[in-house]
Amino acid sequence: MTIGIGLIGTGFMGKAHALAWRNANAVMGGLPPVRLVHLCDTPLDKACAMAEQLGFEAAGDDWQALIADPAVDVVSITTPNALHRPMAEAALSAGKHVWCEKPLGVTLADAEAMAAASGDRLTLVGYNYLRNPAFTHACRLVAEGRIGRLFHLRGWVDEDYQADEALPWTWRCRASEAGLGALGDIGVHLISLLTALGGPIDSVVAEMGAAYATRPLPEGGDGAVENEDVASALVRFSAGFHGTLTISRAAWGRKGSLGFEAHGSRGMIVYDQERMNELQLYTNDGPKAEQGFRTILTGPEHVPYGAFCPAPGHGLGFNDLKTIEAAQFLAGLAGGKRPGPDFAQALEIERVAHAIARSAQADGARVMVADTRG
Amino acid sequence: MTIGIGLIGTGFMGKAHALAWRNANAVMGGLPPVRLVHLCDTPLDKACAMAEQLGFEAAGDDWQALIADPAVDVVSITTPNALHRPMAEAALSAGKHVWCEKPLGVTLADAEAMAAASGDRLTLVGYNYLRNPAFTHACRLVAEGRIGRLFHLRGWVDEDYQADEALPWTWRCRASEAGLGALGDIGVHLISLLTALGGPIDSVVAEMGAAYATRPLPEGGDGAVENEDVASALVRFSAGFHGTLTISRAAWGRKGSLGFEAHGSRGMIVYDQERMNELQLYTNDGPKAEQGFRTILTGPEHVPYGAFCPAPGHGLGFNDLKTIEAAQFLAGLAGGKRPGPDFAQALEIERVAHAIARSAQADGARVMVADTRG
Amino acid sequence: MTIGIGLIGTGFMGKAHALAWRNANAVMGGLPPVRLVHLCDTPLDKACAMAEQLGFEAAGDDWQALIADPAVDVVSITTPNALHRPMAEAALSAGKHVWCEKPLGVTLADAEAMAAASGDRLTLVGYNYLRNPAFTHACRLVAEGRIGRLFHLRGWVDEDYQADEALPWTWRCRASEAGLGALGDIGVHLISLLTALGGPIDSVVAEMGAAYATRPLPEGGDGAVENEDVASALVRFSAGFHGTLTISRAAWGRKGSLGFEAHGSRGMIVYDQERMNELQLYTNDGPKAEQGFRTILTGPEHVPYGAFCPAPGHGLGFNDLKTIEAAQFLAGLAGGKRPGPDFAQALEIERVAHAIARSAQADGARVMVADTRG
Amino acid sequence: MTIGIGLIGTGFMGKAHALAWRNANAVMGGLPPVRLVHLCDTPLDKACAMAEQLGFEAAGDDWQALIADPAVDVVSITTPNALHRPMAEAALSAGKHVWCEKPLGVTLADAEAMAAASGDRLTLVGYNYLRNPAFTHACRLVAEGRIGRLFHLRGWVDEDYQADEALPWTWRCRASEAGLGALGDIGVHLISLLTALGGPIDSVVAEMGAAYATRPLPEGGDGAVENEDVASALVRFSAGFHGTLTISRAAWGRKGSLGFEAHGSRGMIVYDQERMNELQLYTNDGPKAEQGFRTILTGPEHVPYGAFCPAPGHGLGFNDLKTIEAAQFLAGLAGGKRPGPDFAQALEIERVAHAIARSAQADGARVMVADTRG
Repeated sequence: MTIGIGLIGTGFMGKAHALAWRNANAVMGGLPPVRLVHLCDTPLDKACAMAEQLGFEAAGDDWQALIADPAVDVVSITTPNALHRPMAEAALSAGKHVWCEKPLGVTLADAEAMAAASGDRLTLVGYNYLRNPAFTHACRLVAEGRIGRLFHLRGWVDEDYQADEALPWTWRCRASEAGLGALGDIGVHLISLLTALGGPIDSVVAEMGAAYATRPLPEGGDGAVENEDVASALVRFSAGFHGTLTISRAAWGRKGSLGFEAHGSRGMIVYDQERMNELQLYTNDGPKAEQGFRTILTGPEHVPYGAFCPAPGHGLGFNDLKTIEAAQFLAGLAGGKRPGPDFAQALEIERVAHAIARSAQADGARVMVADTRG
Repeated sequence: MTIGIGLIGTGFMGKAHALAWRNANAVMGGLPPVRLVHLCDTPLDKACAMAEQLGFEAAGDDWQALIADPAVDVVSITTPNALHRPMAEAALSAGKHVWCEKPLGVTLADAEAMAAASGDRLTLVGYNYLRNPAFTHACRLVAEGRIGRLFHLRGWVDEDYQADEALPWTWRCRASEAGLGALGDIGVHLISLLTALGGPIDSVVAEMGAAYATRPLPEGGDGAVENEDVASALVRFSAGFHGTLTISRAAWGRKGSLGFEAHGSRGMIVYDQERMNELQLYTNDGPKAEQGFRTILTGPEHVPYGAFCPAPGHGLGFNDLKTIEAAQFLAGLAGGKRPGPDFAQALEIERVAHAIARSAQADGARVMVADTRG
Repeated sequence: MTIGIGLIGTGFMGKAHALAWRNANAVMGGLPPVRLVHLCDTPLDKACAMAEQLGFEAAGDDWQALIADPAVDVVSITTPNALHRPMAEAALSAGKHVWCEKPLGVTLADAEAMAAASGDRLTLVGYNYLRNPAFTHACRLVAEGRIGRLFHLRGWVDEDYQADEALPWTWRCRASEAGLGALGDIGVHLISLLTALGGPIDSVVAEMGAAYATRPLPEGGDGAVENEDVASALVRFSAGFHGTLTISRAAWGRKGSLGFEAHGSRGMIVYDQERMNELQLYTNDGPKAEQGFRTILTGPEHVPYGAFCPAPGHGLGFNDLKTIEAAQFLAGLAGGKRPGPDFAQALEIERVAHAIARSAQADGARVMVADTRG
Repeated sequence: MTIGIGLIGTGFMGKAHALAWRNANAVMGGLPPVRLVHLCDTPLDKACAMAEQLGFEAAGDDWQALIADPAVDVVSITTPNALHRPMAEAALSAGKHVWCEKPLGVTLADAEAMAAASGDRLTLVGYNYLRNPAFTHACRLVAEGRIGRLFHLRGWVDEDYQADEALPWTWRCRASEAGLGALGDIGVHLISLLTALGGPIDSVVAEMGAAYATRPLPEGGDGAVENEDVASALVRFSAGFHGTLTISRAAWGRKGSLGFEAHGSRGMIVYDQERMNELQLYTNDGPKAEQGFRTILTGPEHVPYGAFCPAPGHGLGFNDLKTIEAAQFLAGLAGGKRPGPDFAQALEIERVAHAIARSAQADGARVMVADTRG
């Protein structure tokens, strides 16, 4: 069984998917072989150039043709958010498996439709930080009770790509096109981590804020920034405790900070993706005079780090997370464990983001996640 | 003018006050001299022993006698919270100046009464972290616009003195005696910092949680923990932006973590009292390739560090903050700038803590700080 | 022009070379295409399995056949050190270009012979840490005078792969087979960085030490550890200042620590590969009260980070350094700048390591690097 | 028994001694009471002002008068190094106990003379970093075998008080007046720590360097800097392993960095005084996947931290170390354990510094510490 890959989009995530497909089997071994059969982007000459660079057999500027290509078994969707839904629906309808970048769609209705369309196809949404061996080790420690019973979770995700006052207005500032702001771009990553650690979130109260109410228009004057630069929420986990989330796309100095503190009855775990090869662990063990947060450097003990490098502390990089993601997709196709979050699970993640937005728009009133509808 | 000092209490804070009174002038110079005239604690032999150790001229076990002592000009109140109000009211009524530990009282009614009783006496509440040169430097940078316009503030305060499941039930777990839990012990410190940086807080929505619902009673069985181990809040500053607060007395591994992130339009400042001699600053200046958070070590540039040590980066300690506090009290007495927070200002800090508790008790409903009444 | 790749060895470095060849063009673009034509390892079935996993067209267990394969243009040598010389000499003699892992050989005579054999072929030795954008940025800052005139350099390289007392004796402990100990394994990496920063080293005085004088033999009893676990040196740079090197393969807790402090007349740079995406910079600029070491997170400003990821602070990993190395090799083949260190330059690096060993064996007497001969 | 204190000098160290004498008993309890009887500085009005500020009963500008004062039992010597010897000899000759700042003298002959003059008087040299509870905890861990057998030690001490090229020439640059440069100012502190951890040092090979060969003279032109800005050494401990020392007074960005790595067969300890309330510990215990350096925050478990503050992680400061030093002096006077290093022990510390200087002056030739003579 050889898996034919079709890739739509060649930007940040498009290239990351391509590299991941190229490397998954070479790194992990034992997976079905892949063929990079079809790449789509616009304009056509860009598609052709990138197909050559990335090793795809064919290139085109028509995503529907890509989906129709019988050699394509899996479609990687890495286009702007507003295109995720039509592409995913078409691909699923054509019987393809789909690896789609997050968030699923601009609106919750989009996401609901996509989840409904999944059928028995393998779907996976690109919540790549879930693949970090440091993070999965944290999950394992929590699951094994290493820090006792969780009673509080704090999470944050901060970048500064919208921190500069001088940046011009773009479509990203318009709610109807971009949907959520920081919540949709990066907040959903945080929700993916926190719910993996703490289980489902039932309800939220929230605030949103703008770093800049307007941004300069290219044609002169100022355009309104219609979505949030900053969001904060208090959330209740089904498991009976509360947590906090803070999210900013205007956090000067933060480049890829995505992390949490997991407070347990016997210890604490702290993680930040900016130091993605480290995990902080404190446990109430041993002599008091020797207790302290320890910095664990990931290594072969933290599967699948060793597939990349047999030496601990030498470091994985961002693209390696995508390679793990692709490998898990291939393993799922080969009859192994299906990785998550699939479209239905991703919908649950995105419901929380939308619940946060709705609470903030309602002056911080409590919103039940289950009550969100597209 | 020599200032006569009376000290009630010789525990953690009592000793800290005594050392501060002993050192303020020696460190700073130019302040009115002090006489340590009267120390009160129970039982009497403990009071006598501590008076000798700490250098007080007289010792007793009757705080009313201390207040009545004509040689006492200033009363340091460092007793359990429930005693702050009667002692402060008596001292003020006797015309004494008062340096009282935080929080002002068990209830907001206590705090309101104390603020009302202050008259023209110099009052000061022990929000000692406000004295850290690293923190005052942060305030100066914010005030001077070094990180531009503030649009978001995050704060935390975490210790683990109630993290151990095996700790027995004490009066601290009973709401009627202890009042607030983590909010009153340490949360108010956080509020003191955040409002110094960001100005007044108008309203809050909040959550509280328990690490342990019960604790073992000395006589066997379990007693209920009636106040919060953990609290979280979303707060709105009058200045028009929102912030977050998280507070825990059960945060394993955190020993004195009290900090914040100040997000501004041109940079960010990060501070944590556990590394009290450091301040993190990021600004959008200079070549992009060289931007990064810088760790500023406090030194003589950060007044009054140099009064303790002319060499930068050699480090102040916790007790030095109390020395600064005492020195500011003495300077105020000598006709200089009156330090804050006085009782009225401390009441405003504590209103926020009580607003957080009320919101949490009301399922996260918004509470206006101005609507709190004792 | 398509470049045919032959790979000898599939261990840690073999796999890293394979991934690097697969990815160089896909990541960087604009490079000559490669064909993975021949992989060699023993036993044959391992070679076949790895060829399939890594995407090589042919597999074998005869390295001489690989070198004789006319489709092979470049030979990657990733075998144990004692095999580097015969393989490299055969490959060069057959007109192949060679990418060889470090160190060049077991003895300095080996390295000298290899350098002499290079001719006009493109040779490159796997000093991969030189490729880290954080490091090359450090070099650029030094070259541009950002920290003024260098007057002192300190370097360290520490891992703990030989720290455990319980590890058995292996051939690595025998000088005649393994050559240098920690100096050869990792010390040469440190020398590669320090000489890139500070220029050539003229002379050294040094110490070596053993963490364990013996190790348990598989057959019972103990075998002598004949080479160093720890080495330290004071070195003189031709530029007129001195530096220090410390090297350990038995440094508990260090997994990939390789770093330096560059002391200059206007600032300092600090780097450690364990946090490979960070660089610390202090400069004597701006207000004293704001000076501090800043942590620069690498990003697209630090070429070629952006070829991997357009978002700063998202992190490269160890294998990405090898991809950069392969890309530079290909660029050199295509007529661009030839990367270093080639065999002749690597010989100079390794001379310093051998000078350190000789000084240590001579009770710390000064050894001139120029006086080393195989 | 009340101890009468005489203090000579009121600069950095003079004030630190005064505060220490004021606080030792108040903090620790159970020590003999002290009277601050006599302070000496020049000019006289400065002495009078400082005596009032610091609480001394009498002031003068004649140090011989101070030594002759029968109310003075202990003399604190905090003057420039060249005055240590005559003052200490006079004080000892008058039967006084002496607490003298480091280094003992400008030359080794001075130090030898001072050690010889000590007799049965209590002498103590101000190696204050030895008092840090974080450091003494490190010593305890090493002594108890917590990191196994030591086989390597690395130490550094770095400040930047001579880093600025623009600083003028002063007497500190003249060897005949200042003696050693960075070695004497701060290097001896490092030696005090390393020998406390690893035992005596037998021999050294060393290098010294200048950040600036000359400095601007106030009268115009440039004056030669006759002593070292930077020194480095490889040292052999009597216990059979080697270590390294690096020392700089021109290390931009380092304000009070004094630290070490202790490499043992079962773990490692890392310490840096710039984060004086932290200790890093790695041990080869427990699951590999959870091993990491832990950051221990000092607290009441680390005696005598609790005498300053019952709450862990709240932080001691530099002056607190001097308070511990004074308390140990008083305990020694009261018949308890005599603290070290006394003059004879300090001489051994300073012999190492001079051995380093001599080796460096001899092109790095090995110098036996035992062979140093004034």
